[in-house]
Amino acid sequence: MSLQAPKDMAEERAAADFSIDKLSRFWAGGDEQYERREKAYAYIKTDPELVVQPPRNILEFTRDEWREFSMGQIFRIAQIAMKEGRDWAYDVGIATNVYSESFSMRFFVHDSLFRNVVKMLGNKEQQAQWLDDVENFRVYGCFAMTELGHSSALRDIETVATYDQATDEFVIDSPTVTSTKWWIGGSGQTSTHAVVISQTVIHGKHRGHNWFVVQLRDKFNGELMPGIRIGDIGKKVGHDGVDNGWIQFRGVRVPRSQMLQKWVTLDRHGNYTPAPNPAVMYATLIPERLSLITVTTQMIGQAITIATRYGVVRRQGNKNQQIMDYQSHYAEILPAISFMYMVKSAASTLDHQFDILTGGGEMDPMDYLNHMGDMHAISACLKGLTGWYSSEILETCRRACGGHAYSAYNGIGQIIGDWGVMTTGGGDNVVLLQQTARILIFRLTQKLEMDEYPELKFKSSTHYLLRAKEYLATPHWAVRDVKAVTKDLKLMEDALFAILLNSIREAMNNGKTLNDVLLDAVRAGEMHCAAFLYSDAVEKFGNAQPAPGVDPSVHSIMQRMTILWGMKALLRYSDQGFKENFLSAEQVKSLEELFIETCKGLRKQVIGLTDSFGFPDFVLKAPIAKYDGDIYQPYLETLLQAPNSVGKTPYFDKYIKPLTERVAPK
Amino acid sequence: MSLQAPKDMAEERAAADFSIDKLSRFWAGGDEQYERREKAYAYIKTDPELVVQPPRNILEFTRDEWREFSMGQIFRIAQIAMKEGRDWAYDVGIATNVYSESFSMRFFVHDSLFRNVVKMLGNKEQQAQWLDDVENFRVYGCFAMTELGHSSALRDIETVATYDQATDEFVIDSPTVTSTKWWIGGSGQTSTHAVVISQTVIHGKHRGHNWFVVQLRDKFNGELMPGIRIGDIGKKVGHDGVDNGWIQFRGVRVPRSQMLQKWVTLDRHGNYTPAPNPAVMYATLIPERLSLITVTTQMIGQAITIATRYGVVRRQGNKNQQIMDYQSHYAEILPAISFMYMVKSAASTLDHQFDILTGGGEMDPMDYLNHMGDMHAISACLKGLTGWYSSEILETCRRACGGHAYSAYNGIGQIIGDWGVMTTGGGDNVVLLQQTARILIFRLTQKLEMDEYPELKFKSSTHYLLRAKEYLATPHWAVRDVKAVTKDLKLMEDALFAILLNSIREAMNNGKTLNDVLLDAVRAGEMHCAAFLYSDAVEKFGNAQPAPGVDPSVHSIMQRMTILWGMKALLRYSDQGFKENFLSAEQVKSLEELFIETCKGLRKQVIGLTDSFGFPDFVLKAPIAKYDGDIYQPYLETLLQAPNSVGKTPYFDKYIKPLTERVAPK
Repeated sequence: MSLQAPKDMAEERAAADFSIDKLSRFWAGGDEQYERREKAYAYIKTDPELVVQPPRNILEFTRDEWREFSMGQIFRIAQIAMKEGRDWAYDVGIATNVYSESFSMRFFVHDSLFRNVVKMLGNKEQQAQWLDDVENFRVYGCFAMTELGHSSALRDIETVATYDQATDEFVIDSPTVTSTKWWIGGSGQTSTHAVVISQTVIHGKHRGHNWFVVQLRDKFNGELMPGIRIGDIGKKVGHDGVDNGWIQFRGVRVPRSQMLQKWVTLDRHGNYTPAPNPAVMYATLIPERLSLITVTTQMIGQAITIATRYGVVRRQGNKNQQIMDYQSHYAEILPAISFMYMVKSAASTLDHQFDILTGGGEMDPMDYLNHMGDMHAISACLKGLTGWYSSEILETCRRACGGHAYSAYNGIGQIIGDWGVMTTGGGDNVVLLQQTARILIFRLTQKLEMDEYPELKFKSSTHYLLRAKEYLATPHWAVRDVKAVTKDLKLMEDALFAILLNSIREAMNNGKTLNDVLLDAVRAGEMHCAAFLYSDAVEKFGNAQPAPGVDPSVHSIMQRMTILWGMKALLRYSDQGFKENFLSAEQVKSLEELFIETCKGLRKQVIGLTDSFGFPDFVLKAPIAKYDGDIYQPYLETLLQAPNSVGKTPYFDKYIKPLTERVAPK
Repeated sequence: MSLQAPKDMAEERAAADFSIDKLSRFWAGGDEQYERREKAYAYIKTDPELVVQPPRNILEFTRDEWREFSMGQIFRIAQIAMKEGRDWAYDVGIATNVYSESFSMRFFVHDSLFRNVVKMLGNKEQQAQWLDDVENFRVYGCFAMTELGHSSALRDIETVATYDQATDEFVIDSPTVTSTKWWIGGSGQTSTHAVVISQTVIHGKHRGHNWFVVQLRDKFNGELMPGIRIGDIGKKVGHDGVDNGWIQFRGVRVPRSQMLQKWVTLDRHGNYTPAPNPAVMYATLIPERLSLITVTTQMIGQAITIATRYGVVRRQGNKNQQIMDYQSHYAEILPAISFMYMVKSAASTLDHQFDILTGGGEMDPMDYLNHMGDMHAISACLKGLTGWYSSEILETCRRACGGHAYSAYNGIGQIIGDWGVMTTGGGDNVVLLQQTARILIFRLTQKLEMDEYPELKFKSSTHYLLRAKEYLATPHWAVRDVKAVTKDLKLMEDALFAILLNSIREAMNNGKTLNDVLLDAVRAGEMHCAAFLYSDAVEKFGNAQPAPGVDPSVHSIMQRMTILWGMKALLRYSDQGFKENFLSAEQVKSLEELFIETCKGLRKQVIGLTDSFGFPDFVLKAPIAKYDGDIYQPYLETLLQAPNSVGKTPYFDKYIKPLTERVAPK
């Protein structure tokens, strides 16, 4: 029995009909990235300040242990940066991100959120004043936007900064309990400074939102600055290694020079020039959302790897077969794997677009504004679809491990806890998806009513709306050969999407409010993203021949992943196709059959496909997901290493003995 | 602002168009039950051994604190039982169950699982030997079925008990690591005894499974008995108050008299008489599954109450409106509420059926066997549907609270963690739902091919299959008036179900295996349960006049809940109706519109409907769900009471100061 599992694993690995090594390097972004990543994993694996060493288990940590350990990781990375250079520290940091999402988030709020606000919204002097300190951790920053009463709905934030011309300072206040800054990552125990978004009042006039750099703590003794009130947000569902906090301001004075003034200016006399467009003040949210792609493949990829490895070594049922052989397993896990490849592949496209927009460096505000609709549409729905579909994938992975996912030591519980943030933080998904739908409906209307379409510097995610009239003219899909699937599928999805969108548009033209069609609009936003992922991958992998430099076996498996995703996406929204009279029952049934057949045909590729994500055992942490398939004894040993797992029950004398020592009355 | 929330709450409460008091009493099961429950809540609220008193917060407990506190609760209940009588202890226990699912589960493994095995499978002498000790906590029991390698697939369990005639004992062994008993609730730190299911070998012959009472720990000093190896299972995703454990047996000797012998017998010479039907050995699993109904309304009802109360006091968006007014909110929350009422209502039907089966007391084995197919079918799919749909509801509730569900202090995270067990423990849902489908296909085949149907002592959940031929003869549903919905809906669901089932049956007749149609079969199992809940409620609330003793306003709101559930159920499976060419796009669209309209019409009833669940604030624990709607200041105060939430960062000198005290090089 205990020999069967490793044997199963070896056979599954050998069954890959592509080069796992080649696909791993492709996934990593090339040979150089692959080698650097492997070197970094090898380095952190035995470093006790970056990775918790056995017999201690990070999955058992209390809140206090988590908080301290993740700050220790940051301290260690800072040491490496100073002693061994920033490039190596970067590689080590990336590896540590994958090992711990808490570290990743805690580092990110300083290194990305805080730094990007100073960089994108501060003028040259302000950048010179702050950035070197930020990059060398002499200042540790946080991003204070969300408030208790209205989350991140900027219109409704209540924090107020009032200009005092007499002293040339702003006075910042939290006038109500609901104005308390809430969830601010890094503020609970760490940050010396925050960028704070606040209503601005100058000479009694409300001048909209501005960002202020506010010192929170003394850099030498860690005490709170005058007028600052801070508490740790306490116990959360996940992310125990992030010191989210709440902040209240009581007449906190900051010099005028700490209002960020790249787009706005305020002179000594209180003359205020607003930003050319208020949207530039929130531009930092776009790269934040795009960075979610990385987080998704890191976290969800791990859960899928765990469920997949367990699925091929676990045997159960009448024929004692590998549980991965059950339809309920492979037809759920395989589309999830394909989603990872789609998301990873789209990342390079979107990074490229973002590079064009920022000229590889800073973003031009006019370019940004011109492209904002498009970048906002795709980044918002990407967060929506990846947030929600990934939640489903996590639940699939959890169930696929049966009871063993309920053990904290098998990692999936931790991932689910950490992932929760992605569906409600950084913009609620319902709100984001309806924003995407709203932009798309606007574009569709432009195209249909005025035959207009904006000129962009790259191929927009909405380019298929250019053919909207053609799609709307053929409302029933005439299937040709479902098996020659790639091209058909793409047309089907694009057309269905245009029809669905148009149907929402018509309902709104006929007097319905967005709230009346909210659930449909949200699904349209999701579907836009699903279709974008597919069409982007079709461009890369839809041809018979691989692109230059791509290994043929990699091209071939990526093509199969693409087709699988195309089918999954269309099936996922087939109810909309049905409701729009676009798809017939027979079409959906034949597509479903083809989908199951395709999954079945890929069944033996699951280990190769997930090995290529490249997560080492110490990163996955789960004994049931060991690379070599020898899972049961190590699982038992993990339990034996847990604190208070064996020996006499501590409260036996207090609560148990008084009951059990009694003798029954005769 | 801080005055708006309580005002909103009061207005929502006043808007109920039924008597909240009457519905609360109806939900509780009548006036007497209502009064007893309220008395018990009032009692436990201030008892520090049953309910954690502020400023401590149970939602912040470590594993060790949870383990000890929940044993303290059991100890306290035992004291009450001995000093103040079992009836009062029972009421207090029920209230404590609602307060803590960990307590509920830990008590249940002893008081139900262990006790029921002894009672249902032990002979008179064995019952006399054990039951009084069990009921008075002189023996604390656990239920040792699941094993590491094959969970609860009984065929594959590896623990073996070998009869040694020389000493008239059994020798119990765990021959492999995979045979380790795993997840055994109560075994980690508490149990003195276990009922252990084991392969049985007598005189070298394998004689199937038997249950043994095995002593695990000394009752006076808590030490493990010879040959017993036990460890606590450690950190889990939830249920930290339950000491799940693992157990290995190394030549453990138990007297023959501890093999439970109600259905089997073994004499001193090793003559073995097997059970009349092996199924009687697992009969205890049926009431276990039915008990899930109670757990569902307890746990999911709390999450819905939290999300609902927050939903009416939180304001957000362009018009700063109550978030409950958004379609994405009310169209998800209301069907979830109706599901609670359906499940609660079905409980009385199933309890009544179970009473018939057990004559109000012990179950006759022949009656049991005759009815087993039916009871198994409904109990299995009930676990499947409630497990999965409730998971969806929890995710809905979590998202409906935005970021604030991510705070552990708002309770939903704890409920989600605890609930996880319901989808993978006690029989995997995929397995259970396909078992239901298999039984139903068998019944359908009987009916169609032989016009046979079993005679049962009660109206079976499968009674609609009696009309299968009629349904199959009208494969397209001719909608009459969707608005006169109750009767139409029921026929639609019954017919669709018969058609779906027949379609699976035909696929299998044409050579497909169950695995080839597994996903459809699983959905058929789910749908059977959804339709059963609906048809059961239609019988109770479908008439114009209320049943005797039911308040008219209660009857009216229950009728609306019933219709809402009927629509939700049909929409949930409408993709199957579409694939079977049973439902047209127009039918689905008009049903969907009617569904949204019905939800909208019930929008203002949400507070009355959830108030009637009767959860006090101290049970819900969540500051964002306070009964009076005054949520923000108490939420902040909850954080202030958390350990280490304010004051200097403990690791400031170690990790932060060395970075921030440095001065930038000039």
